[in-house]
Amino acid sequence: MEYKKELERLISDLKTNYLPSVSMDLVIFGFHDGQLKVLLLRWKETDDWCLPGGRIRHEENLETAAYRSLRERTGLSELFLQQFHTFGDVIRYKNYSREETLTKLGLPDEALKEFASRDVSVGYYALVEFAGVTPTPDFFAAECRWWDINQIPLLLFDHNDMITLALKTLRRQLSYQPIGYNLLPDKFTMPDLQQLYETILGQPLDRRNFQKRMLGYGILERLDERKTGGAHKAPYLYRFSKEKYEKALADEILFVG
Amino acid sequence: MEYKKELERLISDLKTNYLPSVSMDLVIFGFHDGQLKVLLLRWKETDDWCLPGGRIRHEENLETAAYRSLRERTGLSELFLQQFHTFGDVIRYKNYSREETLTKLGLPDEALKEFASRDVSVGYYALVEFAGVTPTPDFFAAECRWWDINQIPLLLFDHNDMITLALKTLRRQLSYQPIGYNLLPDKFTMPDLQQLYETILGQPLDRRNFQKRMLGYGILERLDERKTGGAHKAPYLYRFSKEKYEKALADEILFVG
Repeated sequence: MEYKKELERLISDLKTNYLPSVSMDLVIFGFHDGQLKVLLLRWKETDDWCLPGGRIRHEENLETAAYRSLRERTGLSELFLQQFHTFGDVIRYKNYSREETLTKLGLPDEALKEFASRDVSVGYYALVEFAGVTPTPDFFAAECRWWDINQIPLLLFDHNDMITLALKTLRRQLSYQPIGYNLLPDKFTMPDLQQLYETILGQPLDRRNFQKRMLGYGILERLDERKTGGAHKAPYLYRFSKEKYEKALADEILFVG
Repeated sequence: MEYKKELERLISDLKTNYLPSVSMDLVIFGFHDGQLKVLLLRWKETDDWCLPGGRIRHEENLETAAYRSLRERTGLSELFLQQFHTFGDVIRYKNYSREETLTKLGLPDEALKEFASRDVSVGYYALVEFAGVTPTPDFFAAECRWWDINQIPLLLFDHNDMITLALKTLRRQLSYQPIGYNLLPDKFTMPDLQQLYETILGQPLDRRNFQKRMLGYGILERLDERKTGGAHKAPYLYRFSKEKYEKALADEILFVG
């Protein structure tokens, strides 16, 4: 009864306050200690998982709406958030047919008309240090948790495709923009940074080439400190030069003929 | 009178057959002989220019709709077309206020309600050899022609921003994907290819590094022919290996640690 009332309230809110035909889906990558995960929601009373998403209020910019949705799911507001692709196929049911999907969702007809009509969905991805996140389910979800990138189940809608493309775009981004701010502690070693890159790329990198490339960007400051508590030859500590990091983000590292 | 009738027909068609709240804008870059241009439309009975655009039919995938719109404006169907960003600010009037814009558009109230309501717009760019294109205005436009990339006027809506971001994305793309197929003749010289890159990047490139990089991609076949009619030391002719080119497009050239 409580559920039905809340659902009615949501439908009415949706009809009044949100843009029709457009939605957002969020691929929230979590990095922690050499692992890369994705935040997924489990639909109530099912074993089916999907990406968190959201809709855009009439008075709200698209990007503001994406940040709002992200904050609602993670509790974080200062995040690296990036639009990567807009998904607009008429049929966006992949692993299950439309009928199967609607049965799984278990919504009354009126809700289906609103929530299961055709949407063009704008995909965003974020990259967070997942130790600092409190995953929070939305009204339709029973559970919200991190899944290892290599163990994603069959998802509802076209959400597996979305994760694949988001990861491809994130990996591509490493070749023209710096990454790491907000993901590593203030002071970190070159091996820490290399581990971040290797985790995202899913493959090992050559230590010397990596170091040369990173130092070449001019975004790192080497401190007069070494990591303590380690074995012999403790590695130097570095930190990002915020100003140069921001500049590299904006300028990008383009084609070098 | 003819205009009014046609407008009424368009509005009715729009209401019935197209998704609300979503549109597309197309940044069509034209390359020819060292020049880079953009296709713009002049709004009827004004001196104001804007990008060509389109809307999405209910039964049509987003990408299909983008290809259809592109074909309608250029007569070309086999084009390199790439989604680059979705623009979703509530206020998308930049160089002119909403009021000024609506006055310029000169549409009756009923049309304004349909055509000037808030849209989230998906931006696509294309790159074509402009010698092969017949620019074709749509119903609202008096004229459709190429503008040099360095001489774009103040445009309606947020279309200057769209061109800036499309060009940034196209330039970025050169660092991870090959380009040139459909833009150069079947057989071309290394200087031809270099000119294409320089024109897009808007800056000169080092000849030796460029050649080394391009050959390193493994997408070019050197022919046993040299360009005829030139001076001494006529340059070799090359062609793209279609298969390897397609593979490089799909694989991308990613971060090399």
